[in-house]
Amino acid sequence: MTATFDATHDAAMSRDLSETFALFERAQRVVPGGIYGHQTPALLVPGAYPYFFARGDGSHVWDVDGNEYIDYLCSYGPIIVGHRHPAVEEAVLKQMRDGNCFNAPTPLWVELAEHLVAITPFADWAVFAKNGSDVCTWAIEVARAATGRRKVVKATGAYHGTHAWCSPLPAGITDADRANVLQVPWNDLTALTACVDEARGDVAAVILSPFRHDSFHDSELPAPGYLAAVRRLCDAQGIVFVLDDVRAGFRLHMGGSGEHFGVRPDLACYCKAIANGYPLSACVGRDALRDAARAVFFTGSYFTSGVPMAAALACLRTLAASDGIARMDALGRRLCSGLERTAAAHRLAVVTSGPPALPFMSFRDDPGQKTNRVFCGAMAERGVYLHPHHNWFLSAAHTEADIDRTLERADEAFAVVAAGRA
Amino acid sequence: MTATFDATHDAAMSRDLSETFALFERAQRVVPGGIYGHQTPALLVPGAYPYFFARGDGSHVWDVDGNEYIDYLCSYGPIIVGHRHPAVEEAVLKQMRDGNCFNAPTPLWVELAEHLVAITPFADWAVFAKNGSDVCTWAIEVARAATGRRKVVKATGAYHGTHAWCSPLPAGITDADRANVLQVPWNDLTALTACVDEARGDVAAVILSPFRHDSFHDSELPAPGYLAAVRRLCDAQGIVFVLDDVRAGFRLHMGGSGEHFGVRPDLACYCKAIANGYPLSACVGRDALRDAARAVFFTGSYFTSGVPMAAALACLRTLAASDGIARMDALGRRLCSGLERTAAAHRLAVVTSGPPALPFMSFRDDPGQKTNRVFCGAMAERGVYLHPHHNWFLSAAHTEADIDRTLERADEAFAVVAAGRA
Repeated sequence: MTATFDATHDAAMSRDLSETFALFERAQRVVPGGIYGHQTPALLVPGAYPYFFARGDGSHVWDVDGNEYIDYLCSYGPIIVGHRHPAVEEAVLKQMRDGNCFNAPTPLWVELAEHLVAITPFADWAVFAKNGSDVCTWAIEVARAATGRRKVVKATGAYHGTHAWCSPLPAGITDADRANVLQVPWNDLTALTACVDEARGDVAAVILSPFRHDSFHDSELPAPGYLAAVRRLCDAQGIVFVLDDVRAGFRLHMGGSGEHFGVRPDLACYCKAIANGYPLSACVGRDALRDAARAVFFTGSYFTSGVPMAAALACLRTLAASDGIARMDALGRRLCSGLERTAAAHRLAVVTSGPPALPFMSFRDDPGQKTNRVFCGAMAERGVYLHPHHNWFLSAAHTEADIDRTLERADEAFAVVAAGRA
Repeated sequence: MTATFDATHDAAMSRDLSETFALFERAQRVVPGGIYGHQTPALLVPGAYPYFFARGDGSHVWDVDGNEYIDYLCSYGPIIVGHRHPAVEEAVLKQMRDGNCFNAPTPLWVELAEHLVAITPFADWAVFAKNGSDVCTWAIEVARAATGRRKVVKATGAYHGTHAWCSPLPAGITDADRANVLQVPWNDLTALTACVDEARGDVAAVILSPFRHDSFHDSELPAPGYLAAVRRLCDAQGIVFVLDDVRAGFRLHMGGSGEHFGVRPDLACYCKAIANGYPLSACVGRDALRDAARAVFFTGSYFTSGVPMAAALACLRTLAASDGIARMDALGRRLCSGLERTAAAHRLAVVTSGPPALPFMSFRDDPGQKTNRVFCGAMAERGVYLHPHHNWFLSAAHTEADIDRTLERADEAFAVVAAGRA
């Protein structure tokens, strides 16, 4: 995740990024690496991508140099009804007039928990936190408290946050942090069964995302019957099934991505799209785990704040009322089929993967994603913000016109790729 | 932390809490325990304290039944210039008009890091997250990455967050999670030296709060020379000294509580008061740890969001410009001396402890804090929000009139205590 890449952008198209680079220069002096984590410029295409944003509106964002982009990252997921959606902003402003952070929750704490329980078929309760990593880690601890067991099984390479048991980089992590973590390949039921058998009686939880969306890989949907078989295995052995729906939650089904794929977990973790960018995460769970959930200590300075909960209620209601799920699916299909068609016209073979609402595109035979960096860099220079190594996100604010303009720009960017290969 | 207590409040003074209890009834159905963590009603006085808040303004808050309180918890620290401070709200609204959460930071990321570096004498860089627990845990990992060692030494009973290595309750935690954590009593240099000697060559970090502020205890300032000796010990053995300034940060000194107590750590962790209730935490550090800080993976869905950074800049500038530190100190002294004087008039012996800006009061010879629950319950019923087991917080928005009204109510509440003892 810390690799840097050659500048491979289409210099002929370069627009002004002088303020971007001036700010990044300042940032490097006062922040280790300038920008860290999933947003580090080291993961993008130097010279082609902006590093700082000035504003957003609907499906569009503007960098600090005033360049405009159609936004297919949506802040890596959180923006789902569009930047500055009026219904969300209005709900936020209403709560702000009363205050945000108190000695105890606001009534929205109850209203939002009731709402999540009402829209999630398997869930009897909800808890709230700030990050996806908070709730995924807490879910594992609840599983341990409920079962009296220690081990957790995850898919090899899957990202569940930055807590020590699952952080994707080794620096600062000890062997003890990983002592109870087992990994098996995604979609490999035989390996999972063998793993659970080997640790029989000591597996507290299996944690999976609803589909494989690892960075630097094509996305991979669950094989037919896979998630149902995981459910049966967990039931047979008294293991808690945790669905990490942090990335996909509310983009595939309002009842959680398990409903989309036909499986009901014991605990489901949300963050990202739950409040259209306002800081909130949640875990919902079954009644059988309520006592364990009470027992595991969980808190944070801002966990009960009202403003993000006002945003969440407005966001989820807007999404449901406007049939946003169907809209994102349709827009994603239009984008993916258009990209495939346009690439083919340039005699380029691309692969689109993942659910259409969270699509990804890669080039066939593209070791190290070098070609995808050329393509995505050329798209950034043409005002379309994609990502060469990480799945993309549609929002309900995207328009057919956005998609069509994106495909026009893709026609130019594929030409850049084809010219580079010739 | 999960104990429940008898209702020991002054029923004669009871005001309407019907909406509080109705909401809590609903909450218990859809949230494990209704409200969890440090805000759980189980830690307060049932029947006397409100559980949900409707609004706040300056130093006052209103519960969902419309009862008003002078707020001496300040949301357990975050509110430092007063609820809905106009300068903070204006900065927040300005950023909201442009957006909050993007694919990368806003320019405020750089401006706030520069500001923290400028006001913190030892710091060369800053990172941002959402919770105190995030930054305390990351600081430990940075220390491990920098030193190649595993062990961390903390004070017995000290709270540094909910991550598995330090969570205060055992449920869901494995032995492996604590395998590298050593504990020594606060203020005990002999014990610390022996501990570090025993693990010589494998101690990555010593993490301490600037004073002891454990719940269920009187606060305890660092003994003369203690923190300086810790600094020397760390220097002599190549150990990273982490100051957990999450609770006290910006209430004692704008340069961090180390400046107040005359010690400079290698890393300092902030949360709470940094942005007047908007969700933000930070860690600042020395140049020597910059490479390790780059190497430890650290990220979250909302870590780079602009709104809390706008709030932080406005909060810190307001606090500095208004000499808020001196004001909180003076108000805290007026409160503590007034409480001691008022208690004495009722022939009650109380102890005030901690720095005046984060004071605490307990009764002598009060096992289990039973008397303090009677007192704090009676104060809640009279519109003063204190806490029987956790240190209190002044804000720069408190007034001399607030303190004087508090002391009038305390005179009544001490009479309730004295009557109960008679």
